[in-house]
Amino acid sequence: MKILLTGFEPFGGEPVNPALEAVKKLNGKTVAGASVSFCELPTVRWKSLERLEKAIAEVDPDVVVSVGQAGGRTDVTPERIAINVDDYRIKDNDGNQPVDDLIAPEGPAAYRSTLPIKAMVSAMKEKGVPASVSNTAGTFVCNHVFYGLMHILAKEGNRRKGGFVHIPYLPEQAARLGGQPSMSLDCIVEGLEAALAAAVTVEDDHKKIGGAIC
Amino acid sequence: MKILLTGFEPFGGEPVNPALEAVKKLNGKTVAGASVSFCELPTVRWKSLERLEKAIAEVDPDVVVSVGQAGGRTDVTPERIAINVDDYRIKDNDGNQPVDDLIAPEGPAAYRSTLPIKAMVSAMKEKGVPASVSNTAGTFVCNHVFYGLMHILAKEGNRRKGGFVHIPYLPEQAARLGGQPSMSLDCIVEGLEAALAAAVTVEDDHKKIGGAIC
Amino acid sequence: MKILLTGFEPFGGEPVNPALEAVKKLNGKTVAGASVSFCELPTVRWKSLERLEKAIAEVDPDVVVSVGQAGGRTDVTPERIAINVDDYRIKDNDGNQPVDDLIAPEGPAAYRSTLPIKAMVSAMKEKGVPASVSNTAGTFVCNHVFYGLMHILAKEGNRRKGGFVHIPYLPEQAARLGGQPSMSLDCIVEGLEAALAAAVTVEDDHKKIGGAIC
Amino acid sequence: MKILLTGFEPFGGEPVNPALEAVKKLNGKTVAGASVSFCELPTVRWKSLERLEKAIAEVDPDVVVSVGQAGGRTDVTPERIAINVDDYRIKDNDGNQPVDDLIAPEGPAAYRSTLPIKAMVSAMKEKGVPASVSNTAGTFVCNHVFYGLMHILAKEGNRRKGGFVHIPYLPEQAARLGGQPSMSLDCIVEGLEAALAAAVTVEDDHKKIGGAIC
Repeated sequence: MKILLTGFEPFGGEPVNPALEAVKKLNGKTVAGASVSFCELPTVRWKSLERLEKAIAEVDPDVVVSVGQAGGRTDVTPERIAINVDDYRIKDNDGNQPVDDLIAPEGPAAYRSTLPIKAMVSAMKEKGVPASVSNTAGTFVCNHVFYGLMHILAKEGNRRKGGFVHIPYLPEQAARLGGQPSMSLDCIVEGLEAALAAAVTVEDDHKKIGGAIC
Repeated sequence: MKILLTGFEPFGGEPVNPALEAVKKLNGKTVAGASVSFCELPTVRWKSLERLEKAIAEVDPDVVVSVGQAGGRTDVTPERIAINVDDYRIKDNDGNQPVDDLIAPEGPAAYRSTLPIKAMVSAMKEKGVPASVSNTAGTFVCNHVFYGLMHILAKEGNRRKGGFVHIPYLPEQAARLGGQPSMSLDCIVEGLEAALAAAVTVEDDHKKIGGAIC
Repeated sequence: MKILLTGFEPFGGEPVNPALEAVKKLNGKTVAGASVSFCELPTVRWKSLERLEKAIAEVDPDVVVSVGQAGGRTDVTPERIAINVDDYRIKDNDGNQPVDDLIAPEGPAAYRSTLPIKAMVSAMKEKGVPASVSNTAGTFVCNHVFYGLMHILAKEGNRRKGGFVHIPYLPEQAARLGGQPSMSLDCIVEGLEAALAAAVTVEDDHKKIGGAIC
Repeated sequence: MKILLTGFEPFGGEPVNPALEAVKKLNGKTVAGASVSFCELPTVRWKSLERLEKAIAEVDPDVVVSVGQAGGRTDVTPERIAINVDDYRIKDNDGNQPVDDLIAPEGPAAYRSTLPIKAMVSAMKEKGVPASVSNTAGTFVCNHVFYGLMHILAKEGNRRKGGFVHIPYLPEQAARLGGQPSMSLDCIVEGLEAALAAAVTVEDDHKKIGGAIC
């Protein structure tokens, strides 16, 4: 089995992106018998998806997991749902700032992750890594890539599993920004490794309580 | 024109539900030429939707806005998207606690609000009421009703507009619970009235920045 | 009996200060048999205390309560302790930005409020107003005035009671600033009135749990 | 030179205390030419201070730094001020729950840390460790030990420097508790080591902006 991981280049004025650092660390590893490769995505609408589609064609993975920075979160958060909208609070790295545009005019309003997100959360918590399900991936390039990925996978007939995981700032970012939660790169990588193992081995997701009241 | 508002009975151990209090205050009013009526929903999956469907049949409204309590939020938040899942962190008022069940097995993964959510946010902020778009209505009974409402409206051909608005705790709740943001009933009602006026009068939603990075 | 309330002029780029608005509303009222007067303080080190000292001389109050805006707080918070330091994260309204200066070189490291802060919190919560004890008034002009007030009262022999109460943003401020908790002016005024009644009538503060772990 | 570090036994239902784990890791190290020893304190009023006083007599340190867990904080936070009050929101490990008791009836209202807290914060941030000054150590056993320590040092004539540093939860705690910020033990230890080096080498604290508005 093969896993393709993606991480974004830095954005929003940050010199580093924890998602890119983390997926680089996992590149070349074998997780639950599956080999991991990675690909760096530009933090730019459309271009990110072009690069992703090419990487999928090159690697021919069984599982695709895109990873992104979620400044302000305390946990590693597998995302439940990707929504069909580009509504950018800030400009992407090419200066695009779409407001309430559809990503795929012909596509559905949303796609569910096809990863076992509850099992991934459990696997991370068992390792002592703070983790929880997220019900929104935002409306910026992270959601754009998540929705675009699921759209690609759906058009192929969903023979590959795929989804998105958000991660916190690194300590070095929080030290600069002030007042933000963070997670060390080692802890993020340990969490992602446990999550990938669950993604590869769990066929039907665990029925565990993990929703949100609102 | 006619507006149907819904509010929930109290849940989660609270003796009061700000949504129910707020919609009662608006009942019988005329907003932007539209008459407002309200209906109380049980905080119970399926039963809430049965009651809602009956109220829609009785009132025959042009616009349906369901309102719910979002403990911990600071703003009045029109919801962007309803998702096809029941994943209850706590039991509903009949003791149901579904985990990762579909609401409508034949339904799409999500429905977008058909209300002009950006215009509603702008109208509230102009009145000095804290407001912002939310990209998740959670996975409890609020989202259940929001998704169920949009499913009903879609099956009718979307001749009525509909959506969901979450509101903060009341001060009296925060005084008991401790450490929670709140909003006075007067402020909530003023905000909802401005939001309803926008819902009735704005045909195409404003293209205003109001997304979330994640 | 006479109560002197103080409120600050707006600062930090805000066009309004909820503390000033609230104390104006209470000016001229009789609370628990005590008459309330108010005085506006400049948000400037030393000048604020000169104005305060003059107002105390003019009014000859039994109780002095200074009120200030605490952006980001959810509750009305009687302060427990004033500390002997000026350490300004932003400039005051005259452009002063002292760092780690003593307010009174000859003064103690801190003064305790001589108001019955636990009784004040209880009185507010009974009215349904979110309230809690705070253990830090910060290190800006609010703490400067709180410390300076207690220093004045101590030098007089503590024949007057005095202290400080922080209050949240108004909704109209939160609507502009985004993502901040707020409290309506009516709710703040109701809370302060209940707190003042307790300040006037309670001789020995209630021994109620209300500390912080850290 | 000699540094004495203290950490607390676990409390509040937690099986681990990050402060104890961190000071154990630093025990026996040499930091900026100073040798580090540590002592475990019971999370019990008075008993903690008895143990601390004994350790000071045994070790005869030049610098004493007490370290404690601050659940909910994102940063390593040198404390500015210890206040003369025991006001416990929960019971200590011997079941004591004093409310608004003085720690030292004859003592001042507060003691300032005699550590260079701004220099310590700068040293940690330069290492990429999230850090900031805190203006309240709470009113539980952490503040009890901080105040008690400064009282001991003051009675000796302040020939030793001393103070308190709060640290966040460990990831393994946050994974259990849910929704809490955390910091890895390696990051905490790296931060404390940088902070201790500053404590040993910086005579007059840096005049750097680092206060709080409230």
